[in-house]
Amino acid sequence: MPRYTAPVKDMQFLLHDVLKATETGIPGYAELERDFTAAILDEAGKLAESVLAPLNSVGDTEGCRLENGIVYTPTGFKEAFEQIKDGGWNGLDLPEEYGGQNLPYVIGTAVGEVFVSSNMAFNMYQGLTHGAINAILAAGTEEQKAKWLPKMVSLDWTGTMNLTEPHCGTDLGLIRTKAEPQDDGSYKITGQKIFISAGDHDMSENVIHLVLAKAPGGGEGTKGISLFIVPKFMVDDEGKIGARNAVSVGKIEEKMGIHGNATCVMNYDGATGYLIGELHKGMKAMFVMMNEARLGVGLQGYAQAEAAYQNALDYARDRLQGRAVTGAENPGGNADPLIVHPDIRRMLMDQKSFVEGARAFTFWGAHLIDRGHRLGDKEAEGLISLLTPVIKGFQTDIGFAMTVEAQQVYGGHGYIEEQGMSQFARDARIAMIYEGANGVQALDLVGRKLAAEGGKPAMAFFEMVKSFIKENEGNEALKAPFLEPLKAASKDLQAAMMFFMQQGMKNPNAALAGSSDFMHLFGHVCLGYMWALMAKASSEALAAGSADATFHETKIKTGRYYMARRLPATGMHLARILSGAEPVMALEAEAF
Amino acid sequence: MPRYTAPVKDMQFLLHDVLKATETGIPGYAELERDFTAAILDEAGKLAESVLAPLNSVGDTEGCRLENGIVYTPTGFKEAFEQIKDGGWNGLDLPEEYGGQNLPYVIGTAVGEVFVSSNMAFNMYQGLTHGAINAILAAGTEEQKAKWLPKMVSLDWTGTMNLTEPHCGTDLGLIRTKAEPQDDGSYKITGQKIFISAGDHDMSENVIHLVLAKAPGGGEGTKGISLFIVPKFMVDDEGKIGARNAVSVGKIEEKMGIHGNATCVMNYDGATGYLIGELHKGMKAMFVMMNEARLGVGLQGYAQAEAAYQNALDYARDRLQGRAVTGAENPGGNADPLIVHPDIRRMLMDQKSFVEGARAFTFWGAHLIDRGHRLGDKEAEGLISLLTPVIKGFQTDIGFAMTVEAQQVYGGHGYIEEQGMSQFARDARIAMIYEGANGVQALDLVGRKLAAEGGKPAMAFFEMVKSFIKENEGNEALKAPFLEPLKAASKDLQAAMMFFMQQGMKNPNAALAGSSDFMHLFGHVCLGYMWALMAKASSEALAAGSADATFHETKIKTGRYYMARRLPATGMHLARILSGAEPVMALEAEAF
Repeated sequence: MPRYTAPVKDMQFLLHDVLKATETGIPGYAELERDFTAAILDEAGKLAESVLAPLNSVGDTEGCRLENGIVYTPTGFKEAFEQIKDGGWNGLDLPEEYGGQNLPYVIGTAVGEVFVSSNMAFNMYQGLTHGAINAILAAGTEEQKAKWLPKMVSLDWTGTMNLTEPHCGTDLGLIRTKAEPQDDGSYKITGQKIFISAGDHDMSENVIHLVLAKAPGGGEGTKGISLFIVPKFMVDDEGKIGARNAVSVGKIEEKMGIHGNATCVMNYDGATGYLIGELHKGMKAMFVMMNEARLGVGLQGYAQAEAAYQNALDYARDRLQGRAVTGAENPGGNADPLIVHPDIRRMLMDQKSFVEGARAFTFWGAHLIDRGHRLGDKEAEGLISLLTPVIKGFQTDIGFAMTVEAQQVYGGHGYIEEQGMSQFARDARIAMIYEGANGVQALDLVGRKLAAEGGKPAMAFFEMVKSFIKENEGNEALKAPFLEPLKAASKDLQAAMMFFMQQGMKNPNAALAGSSDFMHLFGHVCLGYMWALMAKASSEALAAGSADATFHETKIKTGRYYMARRLPATGMHLARILSGAEPVMALEAEAF
Repeated sequence: MPRYTAPVKDMQFLLHDVLKATETGIPGYAELERDFTAAILDEAGKLAESVLAPLNSVGDTEGCRLENGIVYTPTGFKEAFEQIKDGGWNGLDLPEEYGGQNLPYVIGTAVGEVFVSSNMAFNMYQGLTHGAINAILAAGTEEQKAKWLPKMVSLDWTGTMNLTEPHCGTDLGLIRTKAEPQDDGSYKITGQKIFISAGDHDMSENVIHLVLAKAPGGGEGTKGISLFIVPKFMVDDEGKIGARNAVSVGKIEEKMGIHGNATCVMNYDGATGYLIGELHKGMKAMFVMMNEARLGVGLQGYAQAEAAYQNALDYARDRLQGRAVTGAENPGGNADPLIVHPDIRRMLMDQKSFVEGARAFTFWGAHLIDRGHRLGDKEAEGLISLLTPVIKGFQTDIGFAMTVEAQQVYGGHGYIEEQGMSQFARDARIAMIYEGANGVQALDLVGRKLAAEGGKPAMAFFEMVKSFIKENEGNEALKAPFLEPLKAASKDLQAAMMFFMQQGMKNPNAALAGSSDFMHLFGHVCLGYMWALMAKASSEALAAGSADATFHETKIKTGRYYMARRLPATGMHLARILSGAEPVMALEAEAF
């Protein structure tokens, strides 16, 4: 069975040596002292390692089952969920007013990674609740917040997002679910929603569905969409649970992975719903939920890669096979461990350098959100809005590829379900699809985010990278291995953007044909920048005589690997982008 | 349920317009007239489309089961296997002497693709038999051939390859299975073998296991290994089946995919075995089987991508979602089909250009084998020996990636097992692992094949590409879109080889650290070369007034896509290779 150990040391490095949390001046960050964050992360780690991780393969093997309209989660999930509840983990970064602890989002992110790495399917029950809470916080009235949030923060009730219908996913303008206004101000919701993660289960008293539906008078397309709260059980004014609402589970889907999470077909048969936010402006409220969810999915990408990597590393150290070409390294045994072989190293370094880079990117992104929320920093908001599709799309594409590489380290054993490596890949696969398939992320990036605010966030990004390079040019330890490749990669990114701008109006397909490559190019530049930041922090720590020199030397070597071996991908992506729309669009649809 | 249509037209194009089969002068190729090959491929296609493809998801869902020592295949497999037997498909390219039809290997390859695309797990029962037959043909005595081959060619008996043991896969020198010589010349085989594909089943009267084991006196490592025939049921001198041999199935593995094929733990408890080939030289005989098997696995890589692509294409044409950015293309409907979107096109073109390029590479490789076998062409033999790891490693890595892209076209529906797209990816995944994990292929390429015959085959490859470019430089239609990118990519490959040669002796890790990138770089150059060959054939057909202009124009456009959008990967691989061993090997094993 796979093991999992929470990477607390690496997280502490990011929070304190790289982000220098306590010095940022962001409200709430002052209390993030080393000991305090260590205590939280250790506690989360303990729970993840001893309770959640052992249930990961149980969830995969058993899956969820629907019996007489009731969804049953796998053995042990209910008890584990109680522990999450009892620990107050869900409320960590939620308002105290509703029972949360109001810690920064960056702490919620760190804890989230630990939970996702140990058991992604399980964590989704909580994760979707978190998203639903944020939508209610952003769009709900005070009464709605008071009614729904406390029980959701405590996880007595969980939440879901209901967007997709059988005939439409991305193109939500096509949805058919109807909302008929009732005399008491509520609505009757009728329609079918599919792919509803955590749609129903036996771990909470109630499930609060956030449902997109069309109310009369809203017009065509996405303009006519409103957002509704539809509880599984009705809730009275005192917060007491009443009768069953007219919402039911049609079936649980058989999926490639995340079997421990119930992906449901939800049928709404005149179910009572409550409008949340403005009528006909449901997409706006939904996007609040979506944006956080996208960051959470980007996190899933590298968190699964982390879990897979840890096991691949163990296997590479333990399994004896072949001899190092430079001479036996385990002369007492009849073979050397796999880790002596350069191609095994390559795979491990790919994984390690990606995971640590992506963790930095994600934590840094979370800190931008805190800057936005807690400081009202508009530039930070613009930047994270620009980078959200990169975090989601790039990190889940590469994260999945890394779980496949981790599986590859196991050879034939990686293909056997018992070893658990297949599950990491099968689970990670969904992250490339849900919350907007990665092609849609690329489209969002190129078609919307690049041009947002007249291109200000994109310019701010380049400025930031440029300034960093300039400020540190005198640092010889950084220059050749980090700053120069970063500069070159950043130039590739700018050249791609320039090409899009030149083509933009006259040939919009040129940008769209290169959108996915652009997202990857951008992702590599971001990770390159993160590695430069980390290398700087580690060289400073070494210069200051850090007691943990090995950690920092390893960090710098891992970064050098990323810069030398992963960053050259930017040139390939740029070449593809510059080839324009023509090769992509040359065929008539009939000619394929 | 996914559909499958045999790509007969494309195969005919390769056989007749590109390879110009009847003009090659290879014995047996003269009879490969268009009508003749069309008849074979149509017949194979019919069987694949109507019988094998519908069983693909049945095999995935039901899997195999072991009851009281007997392995049962999924519903319908037995009847389908009878049809394969009745059609004489297994003997297509096997000697007439043993009941085959002695057609060229290239025809067996084309038919093999059709069967693999429609049902990979099912086809493995036949595929492994084919490999075992080849090993017996190469290493067996006349008596052994006469005794075992006719029933294997007819598929009354099937074959297996037994190499892996629990503690060793790649490093066969470590195997522990023992062979004790008996007075009658036979051996008693004792040990456990794992991951034995088609290890047992209920579709044939007997299973003929080819087993690697150590007989006394052979010394350490791979030198002491011999190859044995171990039948499931004993066979007397008249070929009659007798008592059960002491070989049994320990269990069937639960795997990520190819559920329809029984992957068995085989226990040999003093089973009777017959030495095949020379004592202590079993590795040599095994490699005959392995080499063909590797080509077959390389074929699986693109054959699964083909099947997945066909369905992704259908879905992209049918599914209405969003509008083309350049204006509605389906104004009568409430949305346009997915195929109008550039990023969907990108994915489809990635798949199409890879599959058609890989098919050309594989058919061309098969024709080299025919040149070797039928003409005694040593240069062809050297070339295919060099390229076998490229066909296996590159095509299965990219083939898997393409099944993932095909799945991505489906969005959320791709993750649902019912749609069948997950199965293509899960099935294709094994091809990167078995018959030597792709890292081992890369090692074989860089550590052995490049230097073979003093580097003659590698030089011959470059010479061939160079001559082709030179001969066609005057052809303006080919020059910019095909010859120039091919030249650039080929230069990258040569630069990488030069780097290995310079580093070779003093730093063997430098070549090994770049081996996987080199394999991919080589693969891209090969596919680029194939696309240039195909583009030439298609422009000639167009110039000659081909009745099927659309086919040839599509072919050229697809090739231009490959050259413009896929070939730039060579630069990235070269940059990684040139960074050498240092970034890869910098960390101490303990520091990870």
